[in-house]
Amino acid sequence: MPVTQTRYVAVVGPGDASTNELDAAEAVGRGLGQAGATIVSGGLDGVMAAVCRGATSAGGTTVGILPGSRRADGNEWLTIALPTGIGELRNGLVVRAADAVIAIGGAYGTLSEIALALRTGVPVIGLGTWGIEGVEQVDSPEQAVERALWRATDRISA
Amino acid sequence: MPVTQTRYVAVVGPGDASTNELDAAEAVGRGLGQAGATIVSGGLDGVMAAVCRGATSAGGTTVGILPGSRRADGNEWLTIALPTGIGELRNGLVVRAADAVIAIGGAYGTLSEIALALRTGVPVIGLGTWGIEGVEQVDSPEQAVERALWRATDRISA
Amino acid sequence: MPVTQTRYVAVVGPGDASTNELDAAEAVGRGLGQAGATIVSGGLDGVMAAVCRGATSAGGTTVGILPGSRRADGNEWLTIALPTGIGELRNGLVVRAADAVIAIGGAYGTLSEIALALRTGVPVIGLGTWGIEGVEQVDSPEQAVERALWRATDRISA
Amino acid sequence: MPVTQTRYVAVVGPGDASTNELDAAEAVGRGLGQAGATIVSGGLDGVMAAVCRGATSAGGTTVGILPGSRRADGNEWLTIALPTGIGELRNGLVVRAADAVIAIGGAYGTLSEIALALRTGVPVIGLGTWGIEGVEQVDSPEQAVERALWRATDRISA
Repeated sequence: MPVTQTRYVAVVGPGDASTNELDAAEAVGRGLGQAGATIVSGGLDGVMAAVCRGATSAGGTTVGILPGSRRADGNEWLTIALPTGIGELRNGLVVRAADAVIAIGGAYGTLSEIALALRTGVPVIGLGTWGIEGVEQVDSPEQAVERALWRATDRISA
Repeated sequence: MPVTQTRYVAVVGPGDASTNELDAAEAVGRGLGQAGATIVSGGLDGVMAAVCRGATSAGGTTVGILPGSRRADGNEWLTIALPTGIGELRNGLVVRAADAVIAIGGAYGTLSEIALALRTGVPVIGLGTWGIEGVEQVDSPEQAVERALWRATDRISA
Repeated sequence: MPVTQTRYVAVVGPGDASTNELDAAEAVGRGLGQAGATIVSGGLDGVMAAVCRGATSAGGTTVGILPGSRRADGNEWLTIALPTGIGELRNGLVVRAADAVIAIGGAYGTLSEIALALRTGVPVIGLGTWGIEGVEQVDSPEQAVERALWRATDRISA
Repeated sequence: MPVTQTRYVAVVGPGDASTNELDAAEAVGRGLGQAGATIVSGGLDGVMAAVCRGATSAGGTTVGILPGSRRADGNEWLTIALPTGIGELRNGLVVRAADAVIAIGGAYGTLSEIALALRTGVPVIGLGTWGIEGVEQVDSPEQAVERALWRATDRISA
């Protein structure tokens, strides 16, 4: 499939996450991987690692945009690990690289990614995350995957 | 005063603002300018221009970190106008440059700056803005200035 | 192979290139692809497209870090296309993502990448490029590939 | 003077500089300060500190765009010190903020700034620096100041 037809979905969430959040992230990753989407994340632990683990188990491709300068800081389920050395400002790059964002959990970094996405017109699907107007809230990983793929398809066809 | 003793306060808010928000921003700028703080903002219109206008009227110094590549896009009350050409990612630079943040109004860009500040340990004072845990909400421009200066002083003494 | 063992080689060169430069870039891409390296580039045309075409023909993985906000601006041989919206500052991200850099041809953007790499300790192999001290000059695409892989292996083992 | 009429001149050079380079930088800073230009630099030591010292002695305004997250890392002659936390990528911001660049000495970081400037159409004046085509080489601090102001005036009038 030409790269311009591939859907890029960012999954954002805390590095320090609850079991529920990790399970949700892994299921989201699996669903996106099965659908052939490319998963973008911050590349570290917690939700970021769980979504990559799920995606990899389904043969998906995962891209980690890392805050630091060392590739080895990336989690072990990254297909592509990109050190940036720009710290938290890399959150903006995660959003820029995505056709849709799935937000899981309630960390501040996650909130910054939600806000930047809404600011720049990238659709955001929320799963147990901040109740911000403009976020499309869903109740299950399956719904999150379905809505994100729908929105991403819409966006790249526009 | 040595530059390391000057307090840098970012004032963040929408480019398209209500009269109330503009009045509040101008009063905040005046207060910060009188106190000798350096005001950092995104450098464009609305709240960003109003705070600079207020600061300038009180002899304050204003720094605008612009999203585009043209200095002329900055508002006319900027002491220093810095084009970056990195678009909305410059929001992160506004936060990085600040010892404290005052957030006015409810735009998504503002929310991204609140979130990045809380993520990186920069104190945030809210005036008619998002009700996010961790933001210290106040009721008047005077309180916003007082709290922001207090927090900034605390931070640069740490 | 774990992502931390994969060698990331950036190939940098002009978007507007001579036939010789394009041929060299394609051969470099082919060699890197055969060796299982991940190729990083600015993702646009000219040398960037030729190296990706070569790499793809050999089953390699190519990552394009794009200056603009549209994924569709990437060339058609990118495995992963990442819009950044930060313009020429993305040159720094291309370098940060690499364990070694191969520079082809004499554009200013290429020079900025050579300089940032040398500044940050990333080894640079030159093929018909700027005669800057610190660049390891070679005479053929095959030598460029061999030296870059050697240097990258060295670096990730350090 | 309206901010859009002020000329912003970046002075770039090594943090670890020779006595000749430091003397030249201080004289350049003095000249720019006397002319009412705003001086932009990377804000650290060596050439960056010398140019700020010279500018301040002549009542000039100096802006330091720092690689790290701590304002206290800036030299003591900065009017405005802006931590960015993006490391060497801040070199691109120094260039983006400038109407003209004066390059002193031969470090790699300096070369990256020369290259980015030439790439993005910002005129570069060289004083004992890299012999890159496109750089206007001069022989004295006075000539560097004169040419840089001339080029900057030209550019902001365009």
